[in-house]
Amino acid sequence: MTIENNAPERIRRRRGRGDGTPPASKRSPNYRQLRNPFPVMSVFSDDEAANMNETALTMLEELGMRVLLPEAIKIYAAAGARVEGDMVYLGREIVEAAIASAPRSIHCQAGARERDVVLELGALAFQPGAGAPHATDLKRGRRPGSAQDFTEYTRITHHYDVFQMMSPSVEPQDVPTNLRHYFTLLTQAERTDKFPFLFARGTPQTLDNFEMLRIARGLSEEEFRTGAHAYTIINTNSPRTLDIPMAQGLIDFARHGQMCIVTPFTLMGAMAPITVAGAITLSHAECMAAITLTQLVNPGAPVCYGTFTSNVDMKSGAPAFGTPGHFQASLAAGQMARMLGLPWRSAAGSASNINDVQAANENQMGLWGCLLGGATVIIHSAGWLEGGLTVSYEKIVTDVEVLNMVAELCAGKKAGTDEIGFANALSQVAPSGHFFAAPQTMDRYNTEFYEPLVHDYANFGTWTERGARDANARATDVWEAILSKPDQMMTSPDRLETLRAFIEKRTAEGGAPPES
Amino acid sequence: MTIENNAPERIRRRRGRGDGTPPASKRSPNYRQLRNPFPVMSVFSDDEAANMNETALTMLEELGMRVLLPEAIKIYAAAGARVEGDMVYLGREIVEAAIASAPRSIHCQAGARERDVVLELGALAFQPGAGAPHATDLKRGRRPGSAQDFTEYTRITHHYDVFQMMSPSVEPQDVPTNLRHYFTLLTQAERTDKFPFLFARGTPQTLDNFEMLRIARGLSEEEFRTGAHAYTIINTNSPRTLDIPMAQGLIDFARHGQMCIVTPFTLMGAMAPITVAGAITLSHAECMAAITLTQLVNPGAPVCYGTFTSNVDMKSGAPAFGTPGHFQASLAAGQMARMLGLPWRSAAGSASNINDVQAANENQMGLWGCLLGGATVIIHSAGWLEGGLTVSYEKIVTDVEVLNMVAELCAGKKAGTDEIGFANALSQVAPSGHFFAAPQTMDRYNTEFYEPLVHDYANFGTWTERGARDANARATDVWEAILSKPDQMMTSPDRLETLRAFIEKRTAEGGAPPES
Repeated sequence: MTIENNAPERIRRRRGRGDGTPPASKRSPNYRQLRNPFPVMSVFSDDEAANMNETALTMLEELGMRVLLPEAIKIYAAAGARVEGDMVYLGREIVEAAIASAPRSIHCQAGARERDVVLELGALAFQPGAGAPHATDLKRGRRPGSAQDFTEYTRITHHYDVFQMMSPSVEPQDVPTNLRHYFTLLTQAERTDKFPFLFARGTPQTLDNFEMLRIARGLSEEEFRTGAHAYTIINTNSPRTLDIPMAQGLIDFARHGQMCIVTPFTLMGAMAPITVAGAITLSHAECMAAITLTQLVNPGAPVCYGTFTSNVDMKSGAPAFGTPGHFQASLAAGQMARMLGLPWRSAAGSASNINDVQAANENQMGLWGCLLGGATVIIHSAGWLEGGLTVSYEKIVTDVEVLNMVAELCAGKKAGTDEIGFANALSQVAPSGHFFAAPQTMDRYNTEFYEPLVHDYANFGTWTERGARDANARATDVWEAILSKPDQMMTSPDRLETLRAFIEKRTAEGGAPPES
Repeated sequence: MTIENNAPERIRRRRGRGDGTPPASKRSPNYRQLRNPFPVMSVFSDDEAANMNETALTMLEELGMRVLLPEAIKIYAAAGARVEGDMVYLGREIVEAAIASAPRSIHCQAGARERDVVLELGALAFQPGAGAPHATDLKRGRRPGSAQDFTEYTRITHHYDVFQMMSPSVEPQDVPTNLRHYFTLLTQAERTDKFPFLFARGTPQTLDNFEMLRIARGLSEEEFRTGAHAYTIINTNSPRTLDIPMAQGLIDFARHGQMCIVTPFTLMGAMAPITVAGAITLSHAECMAAITLTQLVNPGAPVCYGTFTSNVDMKSGAPAFGTPGHFQASLAAGQMARMLGLPWRSAAGSASNINDVQAANENQMGLWGCLLGGATVIIHSAGWLEGGLTVSYEKIVTDVEVLNMVAELCAGKKAGTDEIGFANALSQVAPSGHFFAAPQTMDRYNTEFYEPLVHDYANFGTWTERGARDANARATDVWEAILSKPDQMMTSPDRLETLRAFIEKRTAEGGAPPES
């Protein structure tokens, strides 16, 4: 770290709560590599789950997948799949061989080793809400996502250790689509050393992205290809369709050793059956078909099983999140992922239009479904509103409070002699006395408890005197403080210079429009 | 049911959503008798938990409990406890014999058999926030609790099946203290047939309460004494003190076969050690001492193990709820309760001053601690603000949304042939098609999903056109609709007449002031 990089840290320590970070304390919790401490919950019996898996394999054999990319059809056919037009029928031996070659553990390489994340069953990583066309906050209101929003969102995401991975974030709609991937990669290189996200919007953009990432990380082609340095998310087009850019993304990322998270987005009652069992069976089939493509291209390529299944409101057809159906779908998906042995991603999220009590309750309910389902990666775990149409700066902060508390639970607690404290606490205080000055309390008062970001414990009188500000108003202070800190570059100046020169050259050449 | 009793039901069915209940639907979920479907989570190893239990027994033997009621001291002494002044030292054989005689399963008898609740490990019951001196809502603001608030709170609590038990509710401060117990029992008899709560504020009030409940239920003294028809909550005065009304309550309720929920209120860092292990060890010791008193008075008397342990904010000393410490304390308490084999009560709750995102997140975080701790009864599961100083009508509604969803999860899901739906769904829809009209969807569209009370899935445009109302504003509509329904009496007119005559007589005699 340079002296400049240290300056904000010194300021932060002096300032205390006002800038949204806890005051100087002896606590130094590690939120960067988490293990899921919660017991795994199943919604179906083992037999029921096995029947779902069997049905999914039968679907791939008998009903088939529609595949729109000729290159992908050829790869499936070469492996022995039956092809009729754009329909691909996958025998189970092809699928089972692919699942067998997919890695059980993926070492995701970030910009700094202490930011690396290992994805495997039992690990736990969070991403903020992602893929939103709009951004909102209490200061500036709801607006189409812009370059400024993307940059700010990147900085806020980077700020919180509990986000171990970057996310697809907010769409910078004011950047031309043929140049947007330059902007989003450069911004990630500048503002974060966490494991980055790349959109798969056609081979030209993907190859640009890979080249830029090699520059930013200082990697040879060989070094890049032999480690997972970035990831993309592949949504199938449920039911049973794999479109051109998604199929291309699976091929390109697998070919270059980069990670795909395969996630059918299956809304029960709309593009998926109305039942949890039916929707997860469909999702499972599509997921296995996509994973198979990656393994046919490059056996052992890093790939993560994924689901995002919730229900629609049957009165309006609108998507709902944080519902019992969403929760149970996460449990069911976890059962399928464990059957395959693969790391898997699930999702929280909210359908609410503002960061209100509904938004909080939906997000947390969805989160617990993911946690009890044993999800490895939980996306949309903070900030997601309107079923993903908007990300809210205040909601990122209020949801991070919940994620930080979950991260604290990952650390567990001890009950040794010192903690039980017969000698240093329980026998030191008379009946009806207090423990404020007990030796155990004095030893631990500034390390024992989680310190909140935005939750306020003032009593009603004090809180009223201070302006009766709700959690949202306080959350505005928190994100404003993060953004008011001096900017710092997370990649060395020489690499950034090379990266900017590459972008300048490619921009002059016309960039790379997205493909669809 | 009389014709009058049916009228509101008919109106409700015609009205649909506007009155806060779901529209006519084929769904008829049973929220009245729940089993906890969540896997049990431990925070400590079995050895650590055993050491905590050992330490608690040692505390009772060597450090002792301060007991302020001479009658209680005599009972403990008669069982062989060593007494010095008001200090009682309990040998472990006395405690272990008492725990052995406490019932593992308690059949709580309500006003109607379908409202009965069985409390045992594995069962799950919710109560709304309780014991608040203040009430608040968006229409009338925050005010000292009144008779009107108590009545309204009783009606709202009765309305939701997911509250299987009545709670200590809100304090009707405008009713004289010597007559308050008449008012609160009469109101419960009038407005609900759920399992009632009675305060233990001295023997005269308790005997009045028992007599009134016998009248309301039409029970002989013998019938009353041989079933649990009501309960009270006994808070010890941590650390290690049992005061006069609480000790008297334990004796009176046990003697008459009524249920005590024993709940030390142990804030870590204040009246309890700063560690989860220390605080739960203290709570466990106090709880066992109080349970012992009930069993010495009447072996087999219904008694429920209880804890309420959270942390204080070490900067201000203010209580905090829904924290990692609160969560872990619930897990630890569950381990102790399971060691004894007794049903147990835990608590959610919030420290927030209004029903905002903090209030929602704290309450739900605390709730999940209770659920994963395997709690039998979860009190303060809805409506509790300011660490219990206020109950919020809107928060009851928004928290009930969460509790209803948990109740839905209790029902589980199936994955049989029909649910997986190869024939009636998966094979019926072409790639990229939709399932809106699939046979499986048509069979289930009005029964498959939970229908929300207050969550809104409208898109941003529609929601804005409708007034951009947040969940709190919508919750106001919901509780107003409940209270606007025609009042209905839940006890027969003749019994109510007898009850009112009893109250009139006792009032003329001067009532019964609380004792302390």
